[in-house]
Amino acid sequence: MAGGGMERWCWAAVAGAALGLAVALEALPWALRRLRAGRRRRPRHEVLFFPSQVTCTEALLKEADAGCAAGPRVCGCSLPHGESALSRLLSVLLAARASLELCLFAFSSPQLGRAVQLLHRRGVRVRVVTDCDYMALKGSQIGLLRKAGIQVRHDQDLGYMHHKFAIVDRKVLITGSLNWTTQAIQNNRENVLILEDEDFVRIFLEEFEHIWEEFNPTKYTFFPQKKSSH
Amino acid sequence: MAGGGMERWCWAAVAGAALGLAVALEALPWALRRLRAGRRRRPRHEVLFFPSQVTCTEALLKEADAGCAAGPRVCGCSLPHGESALSRLLSVLLAARASLELCLFAFSSPQLGRAVQLLHRRGVRVRVVTDCDYMALKGSQIGLLRKAGIQVRHDQDLGYMHHKFAIVDRKVLITGSLNWTTQAIQNNRENVLILEDEDFVRIFLEEFEHIWEEFNPTKYTFFPQKKSSH
Repeated sequence: MAGGGMERWCWAAVAGAALGLAVALEALPWALRRLRAGRRRRPRHEVLFFPSQVTCTEALLKEADAGCAAGPRVCGCSLPHGESALSRLLSVLLAARASLELCLFAFSSPQLGRAVQLLHRRGVRVRVVTDCDYMALKGSQIGLLRKAGIQVRHDQDLGYMHHKFAIVDRKVLITGSLNWTTQAIQNNRENVLILEDEDFVRIFLEEFEHIWEEFNPTKYTFFPQKKSSH
Repeated sequence: MAGGGMERWCWAAVAGAALGLAVALEALPWALRRLRAGRRRRPRHEVLFFPSQVTCTEALLKEADAGCAAGPRVCGCSLPHGESALSRLLSVLLAARASLELCLFAFSSPQLGRAVQLLHRRGVRVRVVTDCDYMALKGSQIGLLRKAGIQVRHDQDLGYMHHKFAIVDRKVLITGSLNWTTQAIQNNRENVLILEDEDFVRIFLEEFEHIWEEFNPTKYTFFPQKKSSH
């Protein structure tokens, strides 16, 4: 009887410990969710510095054009085929599946222009906001984008529309000092931040929508004023 | 005896439950540390959009000049005295206590120039990197900073030193599209990110130190080449 009592005592202790652990385990999913949420709050970010090494972007653009199923195309040109700041920027853009907002002071890079047209053909909703002074310069991609059927709006202000940001799939913000020109990409010291961060994306998307509405063509006066230096 | 056994049984169950909870509680500090670390990893960030409302920055600058002990000064001018994008930018800069790195394409804002000189007088180690073409333009603050004894270095490249970033006390990164000019502050559409984030600060500080060494005056050739458009 004493032995049986001890046995029950032991079993009771084990059952109690199990109960305590069960209570703790009950809280575990909550704790894990909090931990995961904590991790999610940390944005995935990347910084690109320019000038970018001149590398071949042909394979990257052809691969994106053909779709993933076709696999990577090979380019036989004499340029280096490694990764560069420009190829990283292109890769982030080419990952777009649903939408792309561009808010760019100057846009004349043929590779970036080709990437944007490619996304438009793929069915991505592309919207572009730009500066009226720079969009008419020789080499600007803006005319080509418009010809391809992409919606473009521009300012009519005394000040410059000097932003240089893009939003991919309402998930990734690309922003920095870089105008999308070959001069800037190949020669200037520039930075670009790539931020997968819902707060930043929301804030910049609001700015984009605000400017998009403000630059509605129904409001164009066709008497733009001359700008001063920036 | 049976009653005593039951009592012991109950106590054993309670003791076991307590043990189980103790195990769980033992893990609690670890879980809390992880949660706090998760929160710490989330950077404090702020986005400023320009054009900035024109507000009086006199009180802010006078207060910073006099030191906190003197309390805020009052300015009786007719400008609005509320917060603006420029006043926020000034506040973040004026919080510097040890160091300020500036990497700026164009710098002609008198208020920002005054803030930088004030920090230099206060003993903050200020270093400036800028673009050689823009530093000689009328209204540039660069000459005034040099006269005040602040170290300035500039490029001699064909490309522009087009960055627009600042690092405060090796803790806060300020970066975006904004050149530090009155035109940009008051008329342009611009963005500035303020990031208290050790990863971003480290990456941009490395870029600064790299440029700082590259622009060492011992390497100046005094035969700068003409730049093309940016």
